[in-house]
Amino acid sequence: VEVSIWYFFAGALKIPFLFLTNGGGLPESKRASEMSRLLGVNVSPLQMLQGHSPFRKLVNKFGNELVVAAGKGEPAAVMSNYGFKNVISMDEYASYFDNIDPLAPYKKFMIGQDGHKELRSRENVLSQRVQAAFIVSDPVDWSRDIQVLCDILRTGGLPGKKIGPQPHLYFANDDLDYQTAFPTERLGMGAFRIALESIFNRIHDNPLEYTSFGKPNPFVFKNAEDVLKEIATSPDSLKQGSRHFKTLYMIGDNPKIDIRGARQAGAPWFSILTRTGVFKGKDNHAEFPADLVVDTVEEAVDFILTRESAKQSLLMS
Amino acid sequence: VEVSIWYFFAGALKIPFLFLTNGGGLPESKRASEMSRLLGVNVSPLQMLQGHSPFRKLVNKFGNELVVAAGKGEPAAVMSNYGFKNVISMDEYASYFDNIDPLAPYKKFMIGQDGHKELRSRENVLSQRVQAAFIVSDPVDWSRDIQVLCDILRTGGLPGKKIGPQPHLYFANDDLDYQTAFPTERLGMGAFRIALESIFNRIHDNPLEYTSFGKPNPFVFKNAEDVLKEIATSPDSLKQGSRHFKTLYMIGDNPKIDIRGARQAGAPWFSILTRTGVFKGKDNHAEFPADLVVDTVEEAVDFILTRESAKQSLLMS
Repeated sequence: VEVSIWYFFAGALKIPFLFLTNGGGLPESKRASEMSRLLGVNVSPLQMLQGHSPFRKLVNKFGNELVVAAGKGEPAAVMSNYGFKNVISMDEYASYFDNIDPLAPYKKFMIGQDGHKELRSRENVLSQRVQAAFIVSDPVDWSRDIQVLCDILRTGGLPGKKIGPQPHLYFANDDLDYQTAFPTERLGMGAFRIALESIFNRIHDNPLEYTSFGKPNPFVFKNAEDVLKEIATSPDSLKQGSRHFKTLYMIGDNPKIDIRGARQAGAPWFSILTRTGVFKGKDNHAEFPADLVVDTVEEAVDFILTRESAKQSLLMS
Repeated sequence: VEVSIWYFFAGALKIPFLFLTNGGGLPESKRASEMSRLLGVNVSPLQMLQGHSPFRKLVNKFGNELVVAAGKGEPAAVMSNYGFKNVISMDEYASYFDNIDPLAPYKKFMIGQDGHKELRSRENVLSQRVQAAFIVSDPVDWSRDIQVLCDILRTGGLPGKKIGPQPHLYFANDDLDYQTAFPTERLGMGAFRIALESIFNRIHDNPLEYTSFGKPNPFVFKNAEDVLKEIATSPDSLKQGSRHFKTLYMIGDNPKIDIRGARQAGAPWFSILTRTGVFKGKDNHAEFPADLVVDTVEEAVDFILTRESAKQSLLMS
């Protein structure tokens, strides 16, 4: 790793930046602590925008309603952190229903992932309608989650019953696949959505209705811009700079998600595609070409530092 | 439980019968032992026809090829029992590939389900193309199985690579849902097939090709008829009777599967629908009406005993 990127992160240059990821499963505060430890510099929770961060805005609508949160990590803790007062993890919710998952005897998932568990009465949960389901991060137990979500969605929020309109359904992202250590892409939340939707539409008359957040949704880029402005003008320890950006740099490794999103967002976005993830091509991506293609994140930062007089904002994916 | 059915099972009446189920996951011999214990009479493996029993006929084609067996129970033991010499369970197969399932750190399935594990070299497995995948029983870990099956099917049997035509894919049944102790139906292997197919068709140019066995596939009923004839003429301890059936009785609780199958099979099949499972209606089923509707299996048997002079064959689902 080159020196320049650490110099940059260390705050010697007053360039506001944040991390924009479709991943998630942990509260922004925990993710920021992780990132601080990893980079050796202080990263604020405000600088961590995850796929599920927009769920925060739905607290006005569902803050006091019974909602279910699904996915790896601590989905209920994430939602609780956003202000949802009656949120229950899928793990806990499913546990109240006898025989809801016929494959349960063959499974034994690690427990204690989600620290957020309140004392509730089983009867209380079973008699309340679920008003919305949030897929906070990648679901781990697809067969159970698809089964229980179908139960919730087709009954109006009361599994086992047969009445009521479809509760709301929100996905933190709709990524079909993503790059990991495995040679080829792994299936993501978008694949889970396809599986759920295909099955639901076979067993239910009305097609599944849902909303997906995450890149390349333009909302994410507009929100990132707003947060960067906040950071730029905040009086605290965060980097300071101009409230008016000439350029916003998007450094990302996924053409379909990062570069496509930055292109759709338009000015003041400038997209830089790295060869560190999904994209391995020699030249630019054919369908979603970036403004610049480089090998590594360090190269991208070097480019920006050279191009700018250290007065712009920077966004990293 | 009425006396007549036990009298019948006890073999006092010479009526050949067998059990026809779309379920599975255990070798016929184990299933027969279970059933013998449950009913207190001797049931032969020949009398247990499961969803995956037709896989036996594919041993000529794939008996020496590397094939993968997925599903709850002991899928590899089932296939090995049929004569497949190079079969590997999905659990074991996936374990040879580092990072193939990004959700693995969040999972911990019960192990030791499949006793059939041979000593193989990892390199040997990784370099061999999988020639066919068999879904022997309901998959437990959908996210991993869909991921690994997509890997196998889109690469020509070598996960992580990008070459080769689609290996063969067989399902033991295509049941969308089935009745359990839960008030409403639970998703079955047919739902898994829909999920796999929908995702595969999004990430691959050629649509998924597969074959499903199980009821209501006419092959199952033809096969059952053949086996009943075998039983009827066998010199061993099984019930004996005429090789020529005037009537074959199908007692089943699932209109879409059992009754539909018997109707499609036509003569000499006579269908009896019980109200013990999926079907709860007062009169007959609208789409797939049975020849007779009764409340319980005992009623069905009583009807047959009354109707027949104890010279017919009987099939129970």
